[in-house]
Amino acid sequence: MTDLIWVEGSWQAASWACDDRALHYGDGLFETIRLNAQGEAPLWAFHRQRLQQGLTALHFPAGSLDTIEQAWQALPLAARQPGAGKLLVSRGSGPRGYAMPSAPELRLLWQSFTPPSWAYQRFPQGLVVDLGQVALSRQPLLAGFKHLNRLEQVLARQTMPDHCQELVLCDTSGQVVEGCMSNLVVCWQGHWLTPPLTQAGVNGVVRRWLLQEQLVSVADITPEMLLTAESVFFCNTLNGIIAVHRLADRVFHHKDGQHHIDYLQQRLEALFC
Amino acid sequence: MTDLIWVEGSWQAASWACDDRALHYGDGLFETIRLNAQGEAPLWAFHRQRLQQGLTALHFPAGSLDTIEQAWQALPLAARQPGAGKLLVSRGSGPRGYAMPSAPELRLLWQSFTPPSWAYQRFPQGLVVDLGQVALSRQPLLAGFKHLNRLEQVLARQTMPDHCQELVLCDTSGQVVEGCMSNLVVCWQGHWLTPPLTQAGVNGVVRRWLLQEQLVSVADITPEMLLTAESVFFCNTLNGIIAVHRLADRVFHHKDGQHHIDYLQQRLEALFC
Repeated sequence: MTDLIWVEGSWQAASWACDDRALHYGDGLFETIRLNAQGEAPLWAFHRQRLQQGLTALHFPAGSLDTIEQAWQALPLAARQPGAGKLLVSRGSGPRGYAMPSAPELRLLWQSFTPPSWAYQRFPQGLVVDLGQVALSRQPLLAGFKHLNRLEQVLARQTMPDHCQELVLCDTSGQVVEGCMSNLVVCWQGHWLTPPLTQAGVNGVVRRWLLQEQLVSVADITPEMLLTAESVFFCNTLNGIIAVHRLADRVFHHKDGQHHIDYLQQRLEALFC
Repeated sequence: MTDLIWVEGSWQAASWACDDRALHYGDGLFETIRLNAQGEAPLWAFHRQRLQQGLTALHFPAGSLDTIEQAWQALPLAARQPGAGKLLVSRGSGPRGYAMPSAPELRLLWQSFTPPSWAYQRFPQGLVVDLGQVALSRQPLLAGFKHLNRLEQVLARQTMPDHCQELVLCDTSGQVVEGCMSNLVVCWQGHWLTPPLTQAGVNGVVRRWLLQEQLVSVADITPEMLLTAESVFFCNTLNGIIAVHRLADRVFHHKDGQHHIDYLQQRLEALFC
């Protein structure tokens, strides 16, 4: 793992300031990014879009996205070649207290790592999934983008049984939202549907790619729909698109569903070749 | 400001690991602590109680509180003498992903600073307060203790008008919860009441001291009650207990209320002599 920090216009070996607002308040954003063999991020437009949403929602200074893009362009090839990385964006240092500094200087961290193989290669039978015990709170001001307040995911992940690879998380009103680390799509009465993320959840890059390609659409999903769905799959950048084999007591046989999920994964994978 | 990190049983000049879970997920706790002239924390029992609640809620390893108390005892007098400090407790370093490390090593940060004078000395007329525009989400798993996921407070603080010193924050169901950086008590029909903090909010040390001394009691509070209350005050460790002078359009005249608030502040202040 390589850790780099963007300081005064160049990437340097990592250290971190103790007055950093990401550390104290989770005042920042992150993106987990998969790269192709040339060190490019085929889904960068979607990462960029979510960063922009988060920067706006958290009232980061104008020009923050330009700084991030400048840093992204300047990232050495060697730090991209592991094939994946996490880009953490902090508002930077500030005095004590919640008030935002008037002229904060963004602090960026890049941690590169070797991505796992696509999930369907590791779990050829599909995922074993349980219904999560942690209900996500409803907070429209923080929904959709990938901020650094992730205790709900930490607590949810802790409740995941060892034999499972994902959880289905609902919000406190009982609506299905997402997985613990990926987005969820169900095939219900022939339609491929993914829950809206206006109250909770992270709007993943693969989810938005699927929406843009009109391969799925948005609809409210109840736990009951989930258990009567024809197919369910999860998606994220690192794992790709993978069918659910078993969800709680229900075993999915998929039939045509599996064929379509394979097709979506192939289209996604082709972007990274 | 002095920054110290607790490393292998002793306090050292601060640096911070880039794989720290407080940084990545807000996976930790903090306490803001006021000290007396001897460098003691008169309300330590209340800080300790909240730390214990947070450590349990976040499934920190057994023995974490012992480590914190050992570090607290070992804190040099020079680092206590500024009169206040922030103790940040991180779960420590971990591999990538939300899953808690199996044997995490706690990371502690101490930042000492000179406390402000009591708020009633800085604002002898009382506080000017507005109704906050940010509704706190309801998440019983994270309510009451002082974790590092503080984006709601950052966003709320940002909306506070310059002429105000605090905000009243409600949750998404419309119940009054607290201030942006302190707890709230109202005198309503002769009773001194503070909202329950089972769905949102931080259970402050001064609030719990007031409850233990049976000087206030817990009751649901609606925005309507707030606007018809005889008195309102805010309390926290750094500011002490201070009456509200104006809340939105309502000016409080207090009468006997002010006398009682002065009495509570004197009792609190006496603890620090």
